[in-house]
Amino acid sequence: MRKLFLCFLTLPLLTTAQSDENLVQYVRPIIGTQRMGHVYPGATAPFGAVQLSPDTDTIPYEMNGKYNPDVYKYCAGYQYDDKTIVGFSHTHFSGTGHSDLGDFLIMPTTGELRLNPGVANQPRSGYRSAFSHATETAEAGYYKVKLEDYNIQAELTATTRLGFHQYTFPASDNAHIILDLMHGIYNYDDKNVWTYVRVVNDSLVTGYRETNGWARTRRVYFAMAFSKPFYQYGARKYDRRQAYRGFWGHFDQNHNFPEQAGRQIRMHFDFKTTEGEKIKIKFALSPVSIEGALQNCTTEAPGWDFNGIKEKVQQAWNTELTKVRIDAGKEEKENFYTSMYHAFINPTVYMDADGMYRGIDQQDHKANGWVNYTTFSLWDTHRALHPLFSILQPARNEDMVASMLAHFQQSPEHMLPIWSHYGNENWCMSGYHAVSVLADAIVKGNTPFDANKALDACIATSNRRSFEGLGAYIDKGYIPAEQDGVSVSSTLEYAYDDWCIAQAAKKLGRTDVYDTYSKRAQNYKNVWDPSVGYMRPRLADGSFRKDFDVLSTNGQGFIEGNAWNYSLYVPHDPAELIKLYGGNKRFVQHLDSLFTMELPDKFFAETEDITRDGIIGNYVHGNEPSHHVAYLYNWTDKPWKTQERVRMILKKQYKPAPDGLGGNDDCGQMSAWYIFTALGFYPVAPGSEDYSLGSPAVNTAVIRLANGKTFTIVAENQSDKNVYVKKVTLNGQPVTNHLITHTQIMAGGKLVFTMSATH
Amino acid sequence: MRKLFLCFLTLPLLTTAQSDENLVQYVRPIIGTQRMGHVYPGATAPFGAVQLSPDTDTIPYEMNGKYNPDVYKYCAGYQYDDKTIVGFSHTHFSGTGHSDLGDFLIMPTTGELRLNPGVANQPRSGYRSAFSHATETAEAGYYKVKLEDYNIQAELTATTRLGFHQYTFPASDNAHIILDLMHGIYNYDDKNVWTYVRVVNDSLVTGYRETNGWARTRRVYFAMAFSKPFYQYGARKYDRRQAYRGFWGHFDQNHNFPEQAGRQIRMHFDFKTTEGEKIKIKFALSPVSIEGALQNCTTEAPGWDFNGIKEKVQQAWNTELTKVRIDAGKEEKENFYTSMYHAFINPTVYMDADGMYRGIDQQDHKANGWVNYTTFSLWDTHRALHPLFSILQPARNEDMVASMLAHFQQSPEHMLPIWSHYGNENWCMSGYHAVSVLADAIVKGNTPFDANKALDACIATSNRRSFEGLGAYIDKGYIPAEQDGVSVSSTLEYAYDDWCIAQAAKKLGRTDVYDTYSKRAQNYKNVWDPSVGYMRPRLADGSFRKDFDVLSTNGQGFIEGNAWNYSLYVPHDPAELIKLYGGNKRFVQHLDSLFTMELPDKFFAETEDITRDGIIGNYVHGNEPSHHVAYLYNWTDKPWKTQERVRMILKKQYKPAPDGLGGNDDCGQMSAWYIFTALGFYPVAPGSEDYSLGSPAVNTAVIRLANGKTFTIVAENQSDKNVYVKKVTLNGQPVTNHLITHTQIMAGGKLVFTMSATH
Repeated sequence: MRKLFLCFLTLPLLTTAQSDENLVQYVRPIIGTQRMGHVYPGATAPFGAVQLSPDTDTIPYEMNGKYNPDVYKYCAGYQYDDKTIVGFSHTHFSGTGHSDLGDFLIMPTTGELRLNPGVANQPRSGYRSAFSHATETAEAGYYKVKLEDYNIQAELTATTRLGFHQYTFPASDNAHIILDLMHGIYNYDDKNVWTYVRVVNDSLVTGYRETNGWARTRRVYFAMAFSKPFYQYGARKYDRRQAYRGFWGHFDQNHNFPEQAGRQIRMHFDFKTTEGEKIKIKFALSPVSIEGALQNCTTEAPGWDFNGIKEKVQQAWNTELTKVRIDAGKEEKENFYTSMYHAFINPTVYMDADGMYRGIDQQDHKANGWVNYTTFSLWDTHRALHPLFSILQPARNEDMVASMLAHFQQSPEHMLPIWSHYGNENWCMSGYHAVSVLADAIVKGNTPFDANKALDACIATSNRRSFEGLGAYIDKGYIPAEQDGVSVSSTLEYAYDDWCIAQAAKKLGRTDVYDTYSKRAQNYKNVWDPSVGYMRPRLADGSFRKDFDVLSTNGQGFIEGNAWNYSLYVPHDPAELIKLYGGNKRFVQHLDSLFTMELPDKFFAETEDITRDGIIGNYVHGNEPSHHVAYLYNWTDKPWKTQERVRMILKKQYKPAPDGLGGNDDCGQMSAWYIFTALGFYPVAPGSEDYSLGSPAVNTAVIRLANGKTFTIVAENQSDKNVYVKKVTLNGQPVTNHLITHTQIMAGGKLVFTMSATH
Repeated sequence: MRKLFLCFLTLPLLTTAQSDENLVQYVRPIIGTQRMGHVYPGATAPFGAVQLSPDTDTIPYEMNGKYNPDVYKYCAGYQYDDKTIVGFSHTHFSGTGHSDLGDFLIMPTTGELRLNPGVANQPRSGYRSAFSHATETAEAGYYKVKLEDYNIQAELTATTRLGFHQYTFPASDNAHIILDLMHGIYNYDDKNVWTYVRVVNDSLVTGYRETNGWARTRRVYFAMAFSKPFYQYGARKYDRRQAYRGFWGHFDQNHNFPEQAGRQIRMHFDFKTTEGEKIKIKFALSPVSIEGALQNCTTEAPGWDFNGIKEKVQQAWNTELTKVRIDAGKEEKENFYTSMYHAFINPTVYMDADGMYRGIDQQDHKANGWVNYTTFSLWDTHRALHPLFSILQPARNEDMVASMLAHFQQSPEHMLPIWSHYGNENWCMSGYHAVSVLADAIVKGNTPFDANKALDACIATSNRRSFEGLGAYIDKGYIPAEQDGVSVSSTLEYAYDDWCIAQAAKKLGRTDVYDTYSKRAQNYKNVWDPSVGYMRPRLADGSFRKDFDVLSTNGQGFIEGNAWNYSLYVPHDPAELIKLYGGNKRFVQHLDSLFTMELPDKFFAETEDITRDGIIGNYVHGNEPSHHVAYLYNWTDKPWKTQERVRMILKKQYKPAPDGLGGNDDCGQMSAWYIFTALGFYPVAPGSEDYSLGSPAVNTAVIRLANGKTFTIVAENQSDKNVYVKKVTLNGQPVTNHLITHTQIMAGGKLVFTMSATH
């Protein structure tokens, strides 16, 4: 009683004391910029359409028609170890394991005009500049760095649809702003489809760029406004050849010519500057038109107050971050709020201020009364990011569902998104995990949309027979290994997705659908080979493929994982899975081995998208298929092992340092895992109401729910050593099943963990 | 008196008798399809946005980076002497001397699927088919031909924005409709920028195509509806390589896959047909969107009544043709009404049914209350076509001026169009002759637009110093030969255009502008070399260039003409020009020599765009700079020589046969010359009210004016021999100055020529 009394007394005080604290101070965008995190350090607004960030190199995706593996480092354009900055471009993915974007690179320079980027190890070989982390500041919504070659201080901030640059120049008669329209991330020879630029007057430039990359047909329109008129400008075309130039020769098109079009264009705008003079640029984007970009610019940043915009975006970030206030050590706070920051970057707003956006059908549409989002890395984010949104961002999650339903309406293939960005489907990875997000929303009652229509869209998607092995899966209950290189992981993922459909159907009272999909959800059993105790590639004739290596990730029927990890991928039916493994004891032994075994070197050599950073034993935290695995001990008699493992993973995989992420952040999925786990629970199977309990890594956390209620987590006696949970109460009632439900959270209340150093 | 009485009696009778006659019967679109006419025989509506016509070959503009001169034959896609038809594409220029377009080629076939066009001399080497003129019918708005390789009868008709195909198949289990999205006129390797196709359902396909040709950034959107569902379909990509295919491999994209995007795509739609079964296709275009194309389709052709659409378009043509009813022989009627047909093809409507169009700024705009037109071949058409419109198509001409003013508003260079098509400026040829059209409209009072703003646009255009030599022209009064390869013709054309500006300024009472531009209009004198009696290239230092050949068209400072012809190009000041030549007698001798001299062979070898077809002596009717020349005798004491020469030119340069045009029809300019001259008058200097009288080649002509009045021309005693005009009266009053004015025509009335065999 006394203890409880104390809690009631102290907590409100704590909360009040913290409520004035600007949580932006704990966000360190630099975390994950070294090695494999693939996040960027630049400026973006929460879920912003513009991600204005430095690119430190421009390695092409292909050289002479061959894939260039080094390009992988540059998925987000920035690598912490690099010594030069090429410039600042306006679009970046956060944490992806493949890439695109990098549109509209801007670089301020002085002295001799250089229009090529140059190479890192040859100073002044191009317009790029040396920089040092000593002069670099990366905050949520703000980035600053000194460009040493030119003695220019670069500062960046952003609104939702606009990048705001502020360059402080030295005195120069020969200052330039380079606009490189050839630059891009994962560029290759033919990637630039077309570029159009118009110099409207001496301080406004508009245009668009179309590329053919990961997004097959992607157009981005822009409007670029300068705070100071340029006194002259120019353009250079680098097209392989220009076939028909015709009578354009009437003009000198390289100098002060207001209209450029082609595949490969760079431009420069020239100034004379005084010492310390600031030249500011507002660079607005639109998915549909130049007019849209101009209106976005006027709507979001009518003036030239760089600091005002910076303050505004940082306030917006603080508003998002304060949805969860934690009491924890500084390092934990940095990890936690940087995770919150990374979780609230993607998906990104994909429409103009007036609601216009380009659909997957390449036609323009208007979002009436909702916000259209893009960048749905659903194979990753259905696991924990969207469930996190269902608690912290329910309105946005509803709009994301609306965006997916619009996608479905417009989809030539009549499918929900698989991995979509910028009005394009890139079909990346496997499964049809949009159904997980939709079913999760339906099951949790977040359905301002027509839930039955949403379910119909799920059903239609799950029956697109021509999609990767799906016809055979429907007919045989698994994908024959002859037919598909990732037949096992796809079968497992389809089975989970089908279970999601069944749960939504149950909620909506559609028994026939529930029955059909509950049956399909059992298909994971069809690829289980009891003779070896693993999921295993199965041939069309029903036999298992002979050639089989449980450690290899290469050609074994799995994507981004091996049989060890993927065989545990039955998030919707752990109890049955444990039976397959031979019961509780054998399953616990198996899980223990996973975390403790030593992998042979060849594993790392052959494996795509997995590095030693992201691995604990044979447990691969850097890739997503295992994200639920540490929680599976909750279904055994050793739930304390969940508690122990998740704390270990938090420690090993997340650090407040540039190399602090053990793998690609994957549009916030890695971060969402951190947030859930640090709070003490995790959605093992989205599509259900349940969260599985772990071991909170915070002392307290107060979640401010959108419904006005508060859900408080208290971890009594919590420390790095006290990772074991002795007791859990929800609003004073003991919790013994290692679960809390979404309804319980949304009702507000208090979840108290009593921690201990022993289990 | 008696004679006059007879006329009044007979004429109304004649008119009544003819008024039921369908003039479409005299239109022979095949005229000019052989050799250099560069017109097409297919189906189009008056000023229609769709020109659906057979293409007989697909010669590329460039082979291995080098210009391929044979391409010139295929400016309109069709050459009468060819033996095969490749297919039917939807956009064609009429009579141009350079080219583009040829979008969306459709070809019906049977039997083995062939997706390449093949070559003409190897039957069945591709999808093309042999054809014969014996089975070919070309009418205004209708085209029919038997595709012999497949025994398919092809019929084409059109509305303004839609091509309507009707293919009558034999019985076949293997019938195809090919949609070739690689095909194009003046194609080259990189011309196709991007193509997107969506198969919406089994009878609707939509998409767009973007090309980089004469129009630098041209997009055409389409909607293609089939009268019968295809039972399967497929696509093939011919891109040099596809760099990033990513996870599209989840699907077989070649068969029944509903979404294609790339640079080089062909598609096929497959049917099973019964003997005599008709498959119809409606193919609608839009300059702005797929949605626009779909709406154009619904608006203009909601059903499947091919014959109904054919009747409607032919009625529309008849309405246009009946604006002038002539009494003349059959051959003259065929020449005359085919000229009317060719004159009423260009400029073409360039907006959706709802008024949306893509501007020269690459942004979408709406034409509110007016029709936006494109394809302004102004170097050609300012001479006689727009003046003809000022009489026969005043409302359309007003909209064309509105289109040019919108172009000016949207132009990155802040200029009126030079040669524009499909939301693009191609800058072709020289001068800024839009000012001639605008000034002509202002002087003639056809100004529903703001005349002062139009004049401001003219002034701005004439002061764009960076445009071909214009800065130097403004400063020095001529373009120095060092600076520009066509310095003399440009100087002469600028001087004429400046005179136009002066005339408009005079009408609007803007004296300062009038004074300035009247002075600039005299600049033609600055390139006159009195020592040789020719216009001649002049150097910056004021001296004339020594190297000079008055016959050569190569490097002599002129475009599409030599010093002989271009030295006469002072349409606005013939009296002063005659003084330069040394007075009446010398000038008459000079003109006589022009028409009678024999040119050396080397002239034809070296000269661009001039052939023996279009030449009489050294007079080049096939190119435009001399179109006013035969009328210059009116300023001498030998006006009968104008009468003689123009009748000779009519006979020699126009014939009702496939090779009946002596040169490129140039978007109707050659035809407009025919119409004016056959009616007995010609606008020597548009920008004035005056028409110079010649020798009518019709017996009577009744012009129905848009204001409800009628202007009648009677040529008494007219015949092939009676080409000399003894007397002219207007409404009974003698005309002695060889002029009538626009006001006189528009007031209605009767112009009577009394013809004779002797002068």
